Amino acid sequence: MSANNNHNHAPVIRARRMGIDTYQEPIVFMRADCHVCRSEGFQVRARVKVTAGARSLIATLNVVDEALLALDEAGLSEVAWRELQVKPGDVLEFAHPEPVQSFSSVRRKIYGLELEPEEYRAIIDDMVAGRYSNVELASFVTACAGDHMSLGEIVSLTRAMAAAGTILTWPARPVVDKHCIGGLPGNRTTPIVVAIAAAAGLTMPKTSSRAITSPAGTADAMETLAPVDLDLATMRRVVEREGGCIVWGGAMDLSPADDILIRVERPLDFDSDGQLVASVLSKKLAAGSTHVVLDVPVGPTAKVRSQSAARAIIDKLTHVAHAVGLEVHAVQTQGTDPVGRGIGPALEAHDLLAVLKGDPNAPVDLRERSLRLAGEVLVLGGKATGDGLGEAQHLLDSGAAWKKFQAICEAQGGMRTPPVAAFHRHFAAPQAGRVKTIDNRKLARVAKLAGAPRSPAAGLELHAKTGERVEHGQPLFTVHAQSQGELAYAAAYARGHGAPYELEPV
Amino acid sequence: MSANNNHNHAPVIRARRMGIDTYQEPIVFMRADCHVCRSEGFQVRARVKVTAGARSLIATLNVVDEALLALDEAGLSEVAWRELQVKPGDVLEFAHPEPVQSFSSVRRKIYGLELEPEEYRAIIDDMVAGRYSNVELASFVTACAGDHMSLGEIVSLTRAMAAAGTILTWPARPVVDKHCIGGLPGNRTTPIVVAIAAAAGLTMPKTSSRAITSPAGTADAMETLAPVDLDLATMRRVVEREGGCIVWGGAMDLSPADDILIRVERPLDFDSDGQLVASVLSKKLAAGSTHVVLDVPVGPTAKVRSQSAARAIIDKLTHVAHAVGLEVHAVQTQGTDPVGRGIGPALEAHDLLAVLKGDPNAPVDLRERSLRLAGEVLVLGGKATGDGLGEAQHLLDSGAAWKKFQAICEAQGGMRTPPVAAFHRHFAAPQAGRVKTIDNRKLARVAKLAGAPRSPAAGLELHAKTGERVEHGQPLFTVHAQSQGELAYAAAYARGHGAPYELEPV
Repeated sequence: MSANNNHNHAPVIRARRMGIDTYQEPIVFMRADCHVCRSEGFQVRARVKVTAGARSLIATLNVVDEALLALDEAGLSEVAWRELQVKPGDVLEFAHPEPVQSFSSVRRKIYGLELEPEEYRAIIDDMVAGRYSNVELASFVTACAGDHMSLGEIVSLTRAMAAAGTILTWPARPVVDKHCIGGLPGNRTTPIVVAIAAAAGLTMPKTSSRAITSPAGTADAMETLAPVDLDLATMRRVVEREGGCIVWGGAMDLSPADDILIRVERPLDFDSDGQLVASVLSKKLAAGSTHVVLDVPVGPTAKVRSQSAARAIIDKLTHVAHAVGLEVHAVQTQGTDPVGRGIGPALEAHDLLAVLKGDPNAPVDLRERSLRLAGEVLVLGGKATGDGLGEAQHLLDSGAAWKKFQAICEAQGGMRTPPVAAFHRHFAAPQAGRVKTIDNRKLARVAKLAGAPRSPAAGLELHAKTGERVEHGQPLFTVHAQSQGELAYAAAYARGHGAPYELEPV
Repeated sequence: MSANNNHNHAPVIRARRMGIDTYQEPIVFMRADCHVCRSEGFQVRARVKVTAGARSLIATLNVVDEALLALDEAGLSEVAWRELQVKPGDVLEFAHPEPVQSFSSVRRKIYGLELEPEEYRAIIDDMVAGRYSNVELASFVTACAGDHMSLGEIVSLTRAMAAAGTILTWPARPVVDKHCIGGLPGNRTTPIVVAIAAAAGLTMPKTSSRAITSPAGTADAMETLAPVDLDLATMRRVVEREGGCIVWGGAMDLSPADDILIRVERPLDFDSDGQLVASVLSKKLAAGSTHVVLDVPVGPTAKVRSQSAARAIIDKLTHVAHAVGLEVHAVQTQGTDPVGRGIGPALEAHDLLAVLKGDPNAPVDLRERSLRLAGEVLVLGGKATGDGLGEAQHLLDSGAAWKKFQAICEAQGGMRTPPVAAFHRHFAAPQAGRVKTIDNRKLARVAKLAGAPRSPAAGLELHAKTGERVEHGQPLFTVHAQSQGELAYAAAYARGHGAPYELEPV
């Protein structure tokens, strides 16, 4: 491992896998007294260009002592190890990275200047090439937040983000799509809408995401029903055969900058209209969609919290969509209560199955939202007129959508039965009253503490909605978990200041 | 180490020192499959509150595999290990950190709102308590950059920053000080100004910084002449005896938020007037200064690049200084060329020694700047009238300042001879011509690649200034380094696109 078999007198540094997961930020671990740190003047937290053969990346330097690494070793975090595709002992080379030229545009943006399309292109290309540190990403995100981007800039950012990754193309036209502007637990309409649209003969190759801050993403819920981790060729075969699919888009390199930006937007937890629009529309452009229905839930604890905020974001989405060649139709929906009964991958899957199967106990709100959105998709796709509601309802109630959904699941690799959690705990109303509010953020937190989305069966099941009257001792919700520890943890939170239900006397 | 001797069935996690230096960002290393990560739902990059006895801090989670840690161990990076003051095997406890309440003010700032004094106090207090991640720091710095802070807000930030650390008090009044708004290599006037002011009987307890992005800070240059790493009691004795000192302020906890902000401002490399003013004045307030002369070099490659930028920053500095009770006088100086001949700690020390000793070969520009600033200090301190230049010159040329400087060095622990580098390379003019420009940023980079400030003897020596005529083959500058590797590295850069001199035909 430590053999020095080159002939130019520069000692060789060899790769070692540290087994340290630093999420998406590549870290290189080196000793301060190794010849590279000394000769290159690298200090802790420096940005270092690491090259292994034909591959290279920019990593952040963490300095370690002799207990962890030999002088001729450099450790790599998991993401760096993967991206460099090295084997233990491979020779690594180190250099100062070129300054990130495009960051000067971020500085210009901070000073309130409007950036040119090519500046956004350069910023996004540098980001996707891994040249932006988390600190630089946070600065970019902050500089663009707070309505600091003009519509023209959002168009530029959207185009740049789509162009930086794969762009899917489909032989059919229109290619319909739907997207929900997050923030509402259990809002799992997508599989139902795809089933209805595909049953109507439309092409709807849906790529969905996994949960980022929520207890479940559409891909997480769908995965309890069928494989979603398809490669592009398989996805194409599914769409060719069935007209639609519901797959995980994460491995398809669609608007990869979006995933990079999320890694800082998540901890900062602030929403920027401009970035939201670019995020949504760049993914749609990249997925090859032509006609998109946008579900915009509005409510005090949803992502969009007021009518005026909704109008502002819809205006921006519509304007930018037209500029980049997408037809969109935005639908404001109720964003106060969670949708359906389940929160968590499998529990949400049970809800959507009930709707598709026409189960009389299926959650009415999930059914109605799905029909409304499906109707708009049918209209936008030229398969219905008016609000399309009648046609959507017919496709659902006739069983055509359920049949189509099963066929899609089979084409994706075979239908599955969602798992059921091993442990449950009921939470009863401490007194009689009416449900005044349900705090979606607290619900999401309970579900995540219970293990969702990591444990697909975990989450919670709601037994009462806002405005409903409950008696003393009547169950309000049930926590589901795969381990006693997680159940206890979620329960402790839900019993304390995390109680998601507020009752009022009747 | 892995004994489980508590009785409430929760396994215990014990501390292990990882020997990984992550600079100022505390990192905790844990296994994803340990009971804490599972039950608390911690995922990689989560912010985790780590408690050891009565001490706790917020750390970022890196997830490691079984080769590095046992299931009942948590590793700590160096800064976390130090701050928690643990021993190997000490029990650690983990919790979700409380949300950083004050970050909601940062979000308000992003949306263009003016923050209240108590909001800045809360932000700075949280920062100093280690509750801000690097990503949150970057967001704060960006939100406040680009003239987004009102004068009132800069006052609030300045007060909050000073109040968050130690505030020195001195029996004498006035307590004079000087400060240079960075950006000019070799501008090492401070030790000369202190010597002149103290020789005039003024109290000038100067705390200086080490280099952040430059090849040398005043503390780095001074350290080649005398110890600068003094504790407060020793510093007081020096000032009591000699009237002045030039020490490193970094360990005195003066405006500690400044050092935290710098850790993200450095990689972002952008200047924000508001933060610059708060940074400078909070340090002066904390150092107990009452009367401050500000040196503001103006030039296209200096920190302040134009007359109008200088006027803007001076206006802000003056306004904020008065509001917080400081008398300041700002002096615009030439900021085009580097000052003196040397760049790097020891090479700059040689220059200032030459000026103090009255060496006829001493750099004239360094002498003249020092006299001008010292004159202003004398006037502001009530020891001279007009521009104070005559009095300053008298104190320098009479040898009084040199005598005082030696006395200060002795009081600080003994005068030293600056080191001389082992390796040199001359760079000759490739053709005859006139020096059109010298790029200070490139000069600084060459000096840093050569090893400055880590190697105190490293850096470069300039043989020609802007406007001077040089012949073909005449030396333009000499690189000094302590290792062949660093010399080669700096030389390669200086020969390539990093050439700091531009010549024009005569």
